[in-house]
Amino acid sequence: MREYLAQCTGIPTTLRAAIEYSLFAGGKRLRPALALGAAELICGDDTSALPAACALEMIHTYSLIHDDLPSMDNDDLRRGKPTSHKVYGEAIAILAGDALLTLAFQVATDCGNARVVREIAQAAGAEGMVGGQAIDLESENLKVGVPELRNLHAKKTGALIRVSVRTGAMVAGATGAQLEALTRYGEAIGLAFQIADDILDVVGDQDAIGKPVGSDASNNKSTYPAAVGLDGARKLAADAVAEAIAALDTFGPEADTFRALARYIVERDR
Amino acid sequence: MREYLAQCTGIPTTLRAAIEYSLFAGGKRLRPALALGAAELICGDDTSALPAACALEMIHTYSLIHDDLPSMDNDDLRRGKPTSHKVYGEAIAILAGDALLTLAFQVATDCGNARVVREIAQAAGAEGMVGGQAIDLESENLKVGVPELRNLHAKKTGALIRVSVRTGAMVAGATGAQLEALTRYGEAIGLAFQIADDILDVVGDQDAIGKPVGSDASNNKSTYPAAVGLDGARKLAADAVAEAIAALDTFGPEADTFRALARYIVERDR
Repeated sequence: MREYLAQCTGIPTTLRAAIEYSLFAGGKRLRPALALGAAELICGDDTSALPAACALEMIHTYSLIHDDLPSMDNDDLRRGKPTSHKVYGEAIAILAGDALLTLAFQVATDCGNARVVREIAQAAGAEGMVGGQAIDLESENLKVGVPELRNLHAKKTGALIRVSVRTGAMVAGATGAQLEALTRYGEAIGLAFQIADDILDVVGDQDAIGKPVGSDASNNKSTYPAAVGLDGARKLAADAVAEAIAALDTFGPEADTFRALARYIVERDR
Repeated sequence: MREYLAQCTGIPTTLRAAIEYSLFAGGKRLRPALALGAAELICGDDTSALPAACALEMIHTYSLIHDDLPSMDNDDLRRGKPTSHKVYGEAIAILAGDALLTLAFQVATDCGNARVVREIAQAAGAEGMVGGQAIDLESENLKVGVPELRNLHAKKTGALIRVSVRTGAMVAGATGAQLEALTRYGEAIGLAFQIADDILDVVGDQDAIGKPVGSDASNNKSTYPAAVGLDGARKLAADAVAEAIAALDTFGPEADTFRALARYIVERDR
């Protein structure tokens, strides 16, 4: 990502600073790890997935900047640091997000696969992530059940995680059966990831997760612990991890990293 | 654009309404006209430019929605109608913009030319349009000269107009010399367009342009009339139109539409 940004000349100073502030704030890099890991799993080499991996992290970062805005979730902290609009003001924060989203597609074209670019756009846009954020905002203060939560999160966080796995598999030349298995894996870990996120917001440590605990409750967000209780949410997360690992049955020990990743997603503390 | 949107299923109702509200608000469609016109000029058929033409208008529309936001230019009217955030609130307006930008790249991949997608992204992003908006915000309340104005507008409005012409030429298989001539044309009409816009903001009719006259002055925007006076600005616009028409010298009567378009850009009343 640093190399791609270095190739961009003439970016105004403050805008570049805001882009770099959020992009290099020390995220978990889950989405690029999934894209690179899927490519490695399929063909033993992750080089072909690098452009898409960078694009996916840029899209994820832009979504965090915009989601944190005062008119959205109005969050002051992200990854232990003040959010973009707290540092640079709302206007530059919006533009930094716009710039990252646009750069993502500039970078994604380097993978040389129009289908991959199209799938990433579909997962990130109104049918996927952006649509999920719209539903999330409209669901505040409403008591929603597990089916509605699943639809909301399948779009808001699931779509980009799912397409991260698919992207790596596609650029590495996966067969139809391999792509299908990895898609099921991606959907299951996407669900597990969101449930774990909701649980961390209740029981997590602010210093580890980098934002205040309890922000979902104070924002009246629809969450799994709110819908089915903490124990119910833990059970759903464990089920999703088991489903993810089962989806990998067609692969041998070369998929052990992905099996471990599925377990890490619910065991992480941030 | 209606057909592309109809293919998108599962967009939340309010988000879809906000997207359609801005996309079908009756804009001039200058950017798609340039892409389609350039393709027609080069190969006599504009079909190959349709996906990119739709993508360019979606990018233009997203940029208007975000530029109008309270933290940006804080405009209440656009094309004679209340701006998106006035109707749908800031959060949905931001998301509608994000969705249109993302959909643009989904659609653009249909042109089957990665170089075109990459050039559109570069023109729309931090090196181009988004960067120009950042400079514009930072230039408010500053007295800037013509060279700074040219740089600002080459990014903010020029880059997307330039790439619209290039896109149509590239998908239609233009030669290097044809692409170079049309690029010079695109740069010159981009400049003429911005100067004409600045002049309309001083002497235009609110009913025709669909937003209050004098908003640049009240926002302390850097404009050509402010920098060189109204007559000076008119002279610069006429020079740019002459430059655009001169760039078309390698073409015969088949470029008459583009010659007329260059003149229309400074003679229009909206």
